[in-house]
Amino acid sequence: MSYFDAASAAPLHPVARQALLASLDEGWADPARLYREGRRARMLLDAAREAAAEAVGCRADEVVFTPSGTRALHAGIAGASAGRRRVGRHLIVSAVEHSSVLHSAELHEAAGGTVTRVAVNRAGAVTPSAYAAALRPDTALACLQSANHEVGTAQPVAEVAEVCRAAGVPLLVDAAQSLGWGPVAGAWSLLAASAHKWGGPSGVGLLVVRKGVRFAAQGPVDERESGRAPGFENIPAIVAAVASLRAVRAEAAQEAVRLRELTERIRTRVPQLVPDVEVVGDAAQRLPGIVTFSCLYVDGEALLHELDRAGFSVSSGSSCTSSTLTPSHVLKAMGVLSEGNVRVSLPPGTAEADVERFLEVLPGVVSGVREKLGAPAPTTAVRAEELVVDSLGKRCPIPVIELAKVFADVPVGGTVRVLSDDEAARLDIPAWCEMRGQQYVGEEPAERGTAYVVRRLT
Amino acid sequence: MSYFDAASAAPLHPVARQALLASLDEGWADPARLYREGRRARMLLDAAREAAAEAVGCRADEVVFTPSGTRALHAGIAGASAGRRRVGRHLIVSAVEHSSVLHSAELHEAAGGTVTRVAVNRAGAVTPSAYAAALRPDTALACLQSANHEVGTAQPVAEVAEVCRAAGVPLLVDAAQSLGWGPVAGAWSLLAASAHKWGGPSGVGLLVVRKGVRFAAQGPVDERESGRAPGFENIPAIVAAVASLRAVRAEAAQEAVRLRELTERIRTRVPQLVPDVEVVGDAAQRLPGIVTFSCLYVDGEALLHELDRAGFSVSSGSSCTSSTLTPSHVLKAMGVLSEGNVRVSLPPGTAEADVERFLEVLPGVVSGVREKLGAPAPTTAVRAEELVVDSLGKRCPIPVIELAKVFADVPVGGTVRVLSDDEAARLDIPAWCEMRGQQYVGEEPAERGTAYVVRRLT
Repeated sequence: MSYFDAASAAPLHPVARQALLASLDEGWADPARLYREGRRARMLLDAAREAAAEAVGCRADEVVFTPSGTRALHAGIAGASAGRRRVGRHLIVSAVEHSSVLHSAELHEAAGGTVTRVAVNRAGAVTPSAYAAALRPDTALACLQSANHEVGTAQPVAEVAEVCRAAGVPLLVDAAQSLGWGPVAGAWSLLAASAHKWGGPSGVGLLVVRKGVRFAAQGPVDERESGRAPGFENIPAIVAAVASLRAVRAEAAQEAVRLRELTERIRTRVPQLVPDVEVVGDAAQRLPGIVTFSCLYVDGEALLHELDRAGFSVSSGSSCTSSTLTPSHVLKAMGVLSEGNVRVSLPPGTAEADVERFLEVLPGVVSGVREKLGAPAPTTAVRAEELVVDSLGKRCPIPVIELAKVFADVPVGGTVRVLSDDEAARLDIPAWCEMRGQQYVGEEPAERGTAYVVRRLT
Repeated sequence: MSYFDAASAAPLHPVARQALLASLDEGWADPARLYREGRRARMLLDAAREAAAEAVGCRADEVVFTPSGTRALHAGIAGASAGRRRVGRHLIVSAVEHSSVLHSAELHEAAGGTVTRVAVNRAGAVTPSAYAAALRPDTALACLQSANHEVGTAQPVAEVAEVCRAAGVPLLVDAAQSLGWGPVAGAWSLLAASAHKWGGPSGVGLLVVRKGVRFAAQGPVDERESGRAPGFENIPAIVAAVASLRAVRAEAAQEAVRLRELTERIRTRVPQLVPDVEVVGDAAQRLPGIVTFSCLYVDGEALLHELDRAGFSVSSGSSCTSSTLTPSHVLKAMGVLSEGNVRVSLPPGTAEADVERFLEVLPGVVSGVREKLGAPAPTTAVRAEELVVDSLGKRCPIPVIELAKVFADVPVGGTVRVLSDDEAARLDIPAWCEMRGQQYVGEEPAERGTAYVVRRLT
């Protein structure tokens, strides 16, 4: 069994486990009390705050412990926006932020604020100039992840921070995916992170608010954590979170080299081993442990299921997985193929042999899923030099499979119209064209669903 | 060392510790994922939700796990008020709720809502008729604790719930202090609790929202916990919380009898052993483990410090303790003495011998603190049949000590005017009059501070 979904949650680091056990007996009391149990809890909390500050590269009194990374982002965005309400109510986020940030932005809009979503290139990265262009006199806050959680692409945080600093706008960095690897460089103003992403326990997030940043905590008044994170502190978990952060940092430089080599191997070999695969995300500016690819003509959920049966736990941004019926907003913003999407995120310590076994197993799993899906014969009707494929009522990846099946039947210069009411087709048909070197003409409203028109060039 | 502050936080129950350890290896993954580690985490979470529902007496899909009791109350009040915004924006709370509730009410007012704070009697209890009188056509929500956290008084929750039900208004019950002892009776609509109050780990709160109660979760959208508690679930802590709730419930009936006998012993003997003590809170309708008393002429912080040196960890609602310079809002609402206040809250398993030792130690500790404070001679000036005591700039309990020292110097029928700028005097001087059978005439604005006028009757 190989767990390759560290970007969702990393298994508990042995140091976290040890620290948690040790502090269960010392850290359960109320740190606001003056008696010995309270003083002991307070000392543990203070020491953890100092150590967290050192790992982040900030002052201890700038660190607030929250119950999760999501809550750190919610509180950070709400507090920093409210703190600068006089300046204005404009918020900048990238289009590929974590859903916690995007949902905060939606709430901000619903409350009368405005939001600019900065676009990314096909590798998933923003440019500092795009942030510069988005800045306005009424911009209260800008947000940018240090690296993307779905494709691993690192963002130019230091450069964007500089652009924001020059405009006097605070930058909040979501460092959830990168803090275990090292501190975030640059003149950022706020930072959020989540312990269970680096091998700490669940239940601990970090919110750092630099001195001098205007901040107005939202929600009911509460005295704990400088008034920025209400509720009784979870000290044993906080101690374990910080202890494991120090432990993973001590191993980070060496482990980063090793994991980068393993993910590079996947990046290079998957397209050799499996036909019709697109590896997505920046090849160089990326996290060490994440590699993401999409397989044409593959149902993401079936793929995950087969990989799970083969002993591999991975994640997917496909539209055809689990609860969601729309493709991942990250893949959508990048404009890359979403069908048959697989994110491999290796936890530190992943054995080379496990990655090799994954590369052995993958081709058979993908071709198995493709075979199962390949069956249904498309309904086609000739109309001059145009074929119409009726894929109405069929889900990703069927529309693309049906398109591919009839494509050889039109002459070069002819077109295929794919009728589909599946949202994923809007992303995946243009992506197929790009992969195949064919022309995506565009979409037209149809009697039912949408017609996606493709012209054969070769 | 005896820890007598279970009402703040109970030490971790052995069952909680065991369950936490066991589920650290099984419950760290994302329960929303389809692979084996995710399915395992989901199973643990589902089982914990079932068990919590059984202990509360509700359906599993009515239970939401939050990161703390405070967050459960914040989310419950905000969500239930917003869910009934069309009905109106009137909120009812008792004057002795936990600060999380009162601060939520303040926020509600700041946002344009209205709040009625229901008064309590001298024992700290509300009456159902007071809630009935507070209900209005625009009442969105009423809140009431199951029992008070500072004095242990049980509230008539079932009766208040009935009054609210008849008016079609949902009642939110803060069951933080009582859930370990048993389910909350009556037709309540929402319920909140906190695991570390019953011996569970920090980091887990419960919010129960009955089916049919209108609820509009506030804050950014999030998919976890029915959209009512954002952020990654802390499954090991949730499992430990629920396991320990079942464990303490199994021992509750027997332990309640034992602790009630021990607190009854403190209630009876402290006034016999220590002169000038007022035991506060209802003598009969109360939690098994809490007893609270106030000692005249005693500085709360000095008392806690001396008790800590003697090996007892207790809490205080005095104005003269730690961070706060105003007396506890609970003691204030009850109109009882706040100076030298001590809350003893026994954790399950407290040894009888420890309580006996407390009763042995207490008289010496109180008289020691009184001796140290007794020194300063009050400045007095005769004005006909009135003495003026200038206590300006002096903190609780000095104004009351100075009043008592000169009181014998005025004839029966004469008055003493105490000049004080300490907020606690407003509460403690009338309380002293009641304890001593003297007449509290009232307060008048003075050139500096306030003059509190007392007439000698005996």
